[in-house]
Amino acid sequence: MSLPTRVKIVEVGPRDGLQNEPQQVPVETKIELINRLGAAGLSVIESGSFVSPKWVPQMAASGEVLQGIDRLPGVNYPVLTPNMRGLEGALEAGAKEVAIIAAASESFTRKNINCSIDESIDRYAEVVEKALTEGLRVRGYVSCVLGCPYEGEITPEAVAKVSNKLYEMGCYEISLGDTVGVGTPLKAQQMIETVATDLPIDKLAAHFHDTYGQALSNLFAVLQLGVSVIDSSVAGLGGCPYAKGASGNVATEDVIYMLNGMGVETGVDLDKLLEAGRFICDYLQRPPASKVGRALSCSIS
Amino acid sequence: MSLPTRVKIVEVGPRDGLQNEPQQVPVETKIELINRLGAAGLSVIESGSFVSPKWVPQMAASGEVLQGIDRLPGVNYPVLTPNMRGLEGALEAGAKEVAIIAAASESFTRKNINCSIDESIDRYAEVVEKALTEGLRVRGYVSCVLGCPYEGEITPEAVAKVSNKLYEMGCYEISLGDTVGVGTPLKAQQMIETVATDLPIDKLAAHFHDTYGQALSNLFAVLQLGVSVIDSSVAGLGGCPYAKGASGNVATEDVIYMLNGMGVETGVDLDKLLEAGRFICDYLQRPPASKVGRALSCSIS
Repeated sequence: MSLPTRVKIVEVGPRDGLQNEPQQVPVETKIELINRLGAAGLSVIESGSFVSPKWVPQMAASGEVLQGIDRLPGVNYPVLTPNMRGLEGALEAGAKEVAIIAAASESFTRKNINCSIDESIDRYAEVVEKALTEGLRVRGYVSCVLGCPYEGEITPEAVAKVSNKLYEMGCYEISLGDTVGVGTPLKAQQMIETVATDLPIDKLAAHFHDTYGQALSNLFAVLQLGVSVIDSSVAGLGGCPYAKGASGNVATEDVIYMLNGMGVETGVDLDKLLEAGRFICDYLQRPPASKVGRALSCSIS
Repeated sequence: MSLPTRVKIVEVGPRDGLQNEPQQVPVETKIELINRLGAAGLSVIESGSFVSPKWVPQMAASGEVLQGIDRLPGVNYPVLTPNMRGLEGALEAGAKEVAIIAAASESFTRKNINCSIDESIDRYAEVVEKALTEGLRVRGYVSCVLGCPYEGEITPEAVAKVSNKLYEMGCYEISLGDTVGVGTPLKAQQMIETVATDLPIDKLAAHFHDTYGQALSNLFAVLQLGVSVIDSSVAGLGGCPYAKGASGNVATEDVIYMLNGMGVETGVDLDKLLEAGRFICDYLQRPPASKVGRALSCSIS
């Protein structure tokens, strides 16, 4: 067993998190959240999504958010761009990095965007090509990597196939999402091992939801294989509303706590991160979904 | 890495769990809970505590509980007996197995039972001797194995020292408790490796609290070392009220889900276990602290 000495955290709270919260969050609150996350030492902060506000009203003002934040040196602020129109919006707002989301499940793809996996990849190809031409970096997500809410089991080979396509297309990193949160440690390892047959392990990110409480154990399992990029959401914001059980993203605080305890560097200041989590939870008027956040805010002694 | 093919779950909800719930639960409800847990296939169910009702009113009627349950063949129903008076009560109620709790922290022992670790061991010696003479099995707990709410870090050597004493005294199994829930995977492994230097690994149980969300990853970490006994609490009932953050026990449902997903046998029927969890949560009028319990009760599809 050899853990990486350093792990890069991709903070997805301001996008994946807030997109799946029932409440709308105003632009200035999002900007403040992103600035606090940057000040806490996070080097990648997913900051918005350029999609139709008809479908995702929570992300309507992503351009304003991107233009309002303090862009810290060395910090990336990727935004989601599912199509050419989204990419154009992101370019106008000065995005330097964009992301696209494919799925490893045919039925999920069909229900979500009404086409096959191959068709979805074809649609993304022109977005990625244009983004690369414009000098942007492109991150690729694959969802349903450990199970699908509609068809159940997903084979590691199906995940590898989509991952390879996104990588060949020019995505610099492939984020492997257990959207439904149904994965367990050995299955997570098998999936990563299969995907890593063709792709370098340091190009793979683990994006594991905590719906069934398994996220940290799955993360510990794949860290042992050398995975060194983890997606997580401050205060456990959000989740996938299309997935069973609804609640979702693993809390960044809990991930950092585990990594700190194992001596794995992240560059993230846990105290400042906890403050950022409390800031957004105060706005949302709810306790953090982070157990570390709750443990340290209701301390007895 | 080699996981055990089978894991024994020690269900601690009716004692460790309910003892730390603010509400009192009537005898008939406890009996029904224990019977449901037995029917779900759990082979060890901690069923009560023979302590002064002045200190732990929640456990006042443990004798009635023990005499009221259906004792299934092959199932053990241990009860806590911190002193000779407790042991006498347990014997009167027909207990076949008892348990004692020591700690690996001097300051925790001092604050909790007002003596040193060595003095606590001396006090337990006569309890264990009498129990063994009466033909009972005795389980030994060690608390604060990965940290103490008062003194912080606890060395693996301190844990090993207490564990050895309990084992030499005649305890058939040593349950290693991360009472504060502050442990992380590598520290959990180091602690187990140190304790297993002197004691057989199959005599060690992992009793990890989930206060900081780390319990399942810590369990996965020590399963890899061959630990094959896990203490957990249905619906995540309870926790240690003396420990920072208060919330506590890892939920049995979440442990079983992880083990099922890895093909590790437990003999526990997850559906029946979930029903037992819903039964007690309905009584307590609160959602289960088990993520699996919540995910499967608020399913969208």
